[in-house]
Amino acid sequence: MIDYNQFLSRAAEQMKGSAIRRMGTLLAQSRDMISFAPGYPSPETFAWNEFSEISRDLLAGTDGSVLQYGPTRGYRPLLEEIGAIMAARSVTTSPDQLLVTTGSQQGLDLVARVLLDPGDVVLVELPTYTGAITAFRSVQASLVGLRQAADGVDLDALDETYQRVVSEGRTVRVLYLVPNFQNPTGLLIGLDKRRRLLEWADRRNVLIVEDDPYRELYFEDSASESDVRPIKADDDGGRVVYLSSFSKTLAPGYRVAWIDAPAPLAAKLEITKQAEDLCTGPLDQRIVYEACRRGVLTRQVPTLRRFYQQNRDVMTGALRQEFGTSITWPAPRGGFFLWASLPEPIDSDAMIPRAVENGVIYVAGEAFFVEAGPRNLVRLAFSAASHDKIREGVARLARTVREELAATEMVAR
Amino acid sequence: MIDYNQFLSRAAEQMKGSAIRRMGTLLAQSRDMISFAPGYPSPETFAWNEFSEISRDLLAGTDGSVLQYGPTRGYRPLLEEIGAIMAARSVTTSPDQLLVTTGSQQGLDLVARVLLDPGDVVLVELPTYTGAITAFRSVQASLVGLRQAADGVDLDALDETYQRVVSEGRTVRVLYLVPNFQNPTGLLIGLDKRRRLLEWADRRNVLIVEDDPYRELYFEDSASESDVRPIKADDDGGRVVYLSSFSKTLAPGYRVAWIDAPAPLAAKLEITKQAEDLCTGPLDQRIVYEACRRGVLTRQVPTLRRFYQQNRDVMTGALRQEFGTSITWPAPRGGFFLWASLPEPIDSDAMIPRAVENGVIYVAGEAFFVEAGPRNLVRLAFSAASHDKIREGVARLARTVREELAATEMVAR
Repeated sequence: MIDYNQFLSRAAEQMKGSAIRRMGTLLAQSRDMISFAPGYPSPETFAWNEFSEISRDLLAGTDGSVLQYGPTRGYRPLLEEIGAIMAARSVTTSPDQLLVTTGSQQGLDLVARVLLDPGDVVLVELPTYTGAITAFRSVQASLVGLRQAADGVDLDALDETYQRVVSEGRTVRVLYLVPNFQNPTGLLIGLDKRRRLLEWADRRNVLIVEDDPYRELYFEDSASESDVRPIKADDDGGRVVYLSSFSKTLAPGYRVAWIDAPAPLAAKLEITKQAEDLCTGPLDQRIVYEACRRGVLTRQVPTLRRFYQQNRDVMTGALRQEFGTSITWPAPRGGFFLWASLPEPIDSDAMIPRAVENGVIYVAGEAFFVEAGPRNLVRLAFSAASHDKIREGVARLARTVREELAATEMVAR
Repeated sequence: MIDYNQFLSRAAEQMKGSAIRRMGTLLAQSRDMISFAPGYPSPETFAWNEFSEISRDLLAGTDGSVLQYGPTRGYRPLLEEIGAIMAARSVTTSPDQLLVTTGSQQGLDLVARVLLDPGDVVLVELPTYTGAITAFRSVQASLVGLRQAADGVDLDALDETYQRVVSEGRTVRVLYLVPNFQNPTGLLIGLDKRRRLLEWADRRNVLIVEDDPYRELYFEDSASESDVRPIKADDDGGRVVYLSSFSKTLAPGYRVAWIDAPAPLAAKLEITKQAEDLCTGPLDQRIVYEACRRGVLTRQVPTLRRFYQQNRDVMTGALRQEFGTSITWPAPRGGFFLWASLPEPIDSDAMIPRAVENGVIYVAGEAFFVEAGPRNLVRLAFSAASHDKIREGVARLARTVREELAATEMVAR
């Protein structure tokens, strides 16, 4: 048997699988499991009828390009629709700044390949999105964390960290931010802080990578359109690479997302995408384009806001009922996630086997930290489960925590 | 304005766009252009009715997972179908060796990222597929070319080149081969040579990357199933990473392909794919799976063989008629391409503007060479154009060549 380790690149030697994807596998293997783990949208919100009609029209065979190779930049009419979406988000852009990507994960990966050499530093929020961690690490970048306040990254910590890293002789290329309903914390960066982050990036000559998949999903009881203004909207200097996606609004199964970047970077991202997959699925792009053109997306979004707000309410209600005041979380004003601190001394990662036994899964907070963090955190996705399942899942989680605490006490005695 | 060059990774600094993709863009911009450039399958061969029926069934909304995130490895029933396809190709495999990829381009890119560090050497055929060149270069690998005989890579050149490279202190990790109807030459590696290549790779401890998109498309007047036996079929030692695709048989618009690799490598390829795009389009995978399950693929393939064989006949007939004996090519026994030597002193790359003016495009041979090669070669794809367009395109090409020769003579005087 050949030892394949001898053939691995340095990048491949270091690569580790994602905790969330592992949970997805676990989930696929069990029928009765209630999942708060992967950030899946709810399939019952998908516009099945419209998608079915659109795909029937597209597959009539009158336009061969629907199933042909397409341009790497993306299907041109879709790029124009994306331009209109960006305008509605107060961002002025043009087709030479836009690139369709195969999900935002590809966007992150392309950004990493184009901007980062091994050892380069990316500043990230503590905690931050695991998919970004994976993409940045895949090019052997170093990730350095920034503590967050309730309104996002602490600006003092940001500049102190920057100066420390630079004084160590390392290069800071990128500040990675998820300003709207951050994954995993659900936090929103304050508007004033967004402007100050941009000023800081200008002063320190760092690029901001703004990852914005959840912005349409603000909850109208506590947030509004004005709260989710992209950093990119005030980016007169070309300092921001902006990523967004149709996965959370139409469906992840189409794998259609986009990057809005300064034109010279968009050109490099396009060439890298050529090497990576030639083009994003042309049928998928056409379906998404038609869903935009026929108004499906516009009709969909207000419904989604109410749907996910209700799910959040069901989850917070159930948590209060089951846990009382023994757990806390920052109130999610949008998005898919609730970031909960379980009672000490729970170790959420070590507790996973017991949770699985009780038929519930979550992602342990550990997965989102690029350095050692608290052990008692969990990310609970309220997006995909039905109201009944959310209640039942929270009950199972509470039982798991009680058992775990009892077992810990036994050991302590 | 920011100088973005300061932010580019070393890989991004060196990346160049693909000549074929550029031709695709050119093509998209003109209505009257006849294209022999990109290797597009003919949309009139696509199983539109069946695809339409399949997508209607899938989008009925009874199974939410159709539009949900899916496992990185691929949709399990599709992996099983791929296992059956591999068995029909005389290759024994199992799900832990298989990975669905977003087109074979992603397969090549994943292989490059997992196996190659900057400076590592990949041995390739002279000429070789541009998409592979792009993928290997994107990780800053060095490509070293091997001359080909009529039955594929010259074995003496292979070992001499290997020894020279190693004596220079460089590492040869991979031998990249397209054994069936090679892109661009259309050549087929002889069966005996396939076994000897495998023995050589064993002896020299090199991995073979076998890229096999065209194997189903052999022309029954000059080739058969036994001529296209994969190298992987005799790979008892786990020396071969095999890539194939549904793009040339069902449709490229689904972006569904696969890798069959030794299990430890497949695991690393999967983790790298996580970072790259999480999963291949779930709807696309389901459509492809249904097309396999419902027998569409099996019914399709014999039709495709006849279709492309006829296209080849039309092109070779037109070339003989227009050029007489002033151009030559190795007879394609399958695939999409004819690799023609135009009369000296034609420079096929320099001639492109004149060809575009005359309404025909091709890919200049240059794009397929990793070192300086002959200047008078063109790759002509006979796959996508109608019979009339093929004849008209060849006439335009002949006119272009006559004009170019006349202009060259004028300059010479």
